[in-house]
Amino acid sequence: MQNLKLTVEYDGTDFKGWQIQPDKRTVQEVLEEAITKITGHTTRVIGAGRTDAGVHASGQVCNFLTESSLSFDKMLRSLNGILPKDVVVRNIELVDDNFNARFQAKKRVYRYIVTQRRRAINQRYMWYYPHPLNIMKMKEASECLSGEHDCKSFGCSGSDEKSTLCLIEYARWEEQGDQLHFIIASNRFLRKMVRSLVGTLIEVGKEKCSVEGFRKIIEAKDRRCGGNTVPPCGLFLEVVYY
Amino acid sequence: MQNLKLTVEYDGTDFKGWQIQPDKRTVQEVLEEAITKITGHTTRVIGAGRTDAGVHASGQVCNFLTESSLSFDKMLRSLNGILPKDVVVRNIELVDDNFNARFQAKKRVYRYIVTQRRRAINQRYMWYYPHPLNIMKMKEASECLSGEHDCKSFGCSGSDEKSTLCLIEYARWEEQGDQLHFIIASNRFLRKMVRSLVGTLIEVGKEKCSVEGFRKIIEAKDRRCGGNTVPPCGLFLEVVYY
Repeated sequence: MQNLKLTVEYDGTDFKGWQIQPDKRTVQEVLEEAITKITGHTTRVIGAGRTDAGVHASGQVCNFLTESSLSFDKMLRSLNGILPKDVVVRNIELVDDNFNARFQAKKRVYRYIVTQRRRAINQRYMWYYPHPLNIMKMKEASECLSGEHDCKSFGCSGSDEKSTLCLIEYARWEEQGDQLHFIIASNRFLRKMVRSLVGTLIEVGKEKCSVEGFRKIIEAKDRRCGGNTVPPCGLFLEVVYY
Repeated sequence: MQNLKLTVEYDGTDFKGWQIQPDKRTVQEVLEEAITKITGHTTRVIGAGRTDAGVHASGQVCNFLTESSLSFDKMLRSLNGILPKDVVVRNIELVDDNFNARFQAKKRVYRYIVTQRRRAINQRYMWYYPHPLNIMKMKEASECLSGEHDCKSFGCSGSDEKSTLCLIEYARWEEQGDQLHFIIASNRFLRKMVRSLVGTLIEVGKEKCSVEGFRKIIEAKDRRCGGNTVPPCGLFLEVVYY
């Protein structure tokens, strides 16, 4: 029995998220079906990040157990040969029997892209927000995020997780032409946390909320204090570190 | 009566090309319908390049006549407010009464993107070609294209055009990570010309055709000599000069 680690890219637009749900098209199900076709046995694929409906991934990581004797190169080509256009396996490697893509992930990096001009090309990969934003204030507020915080103001823990404590390594805004990119690295993320952080930071950019106000929202540990959850199309799971 | 010039961006994936055809979703029709809604009168939109089904544009140019007294800013916002997600008007400007986006275009620039690794994100904006290519040979062959050529080997003239002569300003390949970009500027293009040029240059990259052989294909002026037409998803109309 081999434990294999996959790095997977997907366009989340036409998926109801990562996690298998009855009668819904999910990345996990599409991957499990492809693996079953290639290996001849059913399996459970464990993902590092359970991305929501519409969220993309350039570097999702998952693992599964198999008895297949296919070479990794052949398996990679076979999987990509039958996977739909919006999912690609980028890499396959052998890992330790105990490796669990979800529970052993040490750090995940997400990127959220805001575009300030309406686009036709690439519109499925960013959120269009046309109003003026004070990006300096947004950058300043993001700096408050580094460190360990109870992030209850920005999301709910999953049903099977008790803690809402996150150790955020960094969170910053980058300007790229008429786009604004929010990049955040943390040991863990609560559900919809990146999108509600972006929504709250947009309030700072609109000058509806001060940097001090943002700091108070963090400290409030109350989901009702945080801003709106921005749409999933702008969000990418980029890298998972072990 | 005002003659207005629009710069338009579109994702060609879900369009049957630029030009109006019965019972098919075309960019020209979608634009004309939006303009009619905003101005209250029907109009004909003339496009610089009649892109084929599946071809994208980041800088298509078109013009139309209107009696509307709306400010350009208001018209831009109104159009973008009702256009579908895959079409955006980037700019509106007043032009001379005689301006015709198609017949007065002096130069058009197209870009074709080949990806050498399979992608899920952005796969609708490039053609996946996984086999090895000798990019040096492709670059060398492209250099033969500068200048005036009868391009009959790479396309057919439209039904209403007699000439197949094109004055190509430049044609070059650029390597961008695991992508290859073919960029070509010419006073005019025959139907499917960029895609059959790329298809023929891929033969050069595969070393199935030499640079000298490529030169002979140009000189043959015979469509049967040129290579395959590559898929439309990799092609962008980028800029039109007047």
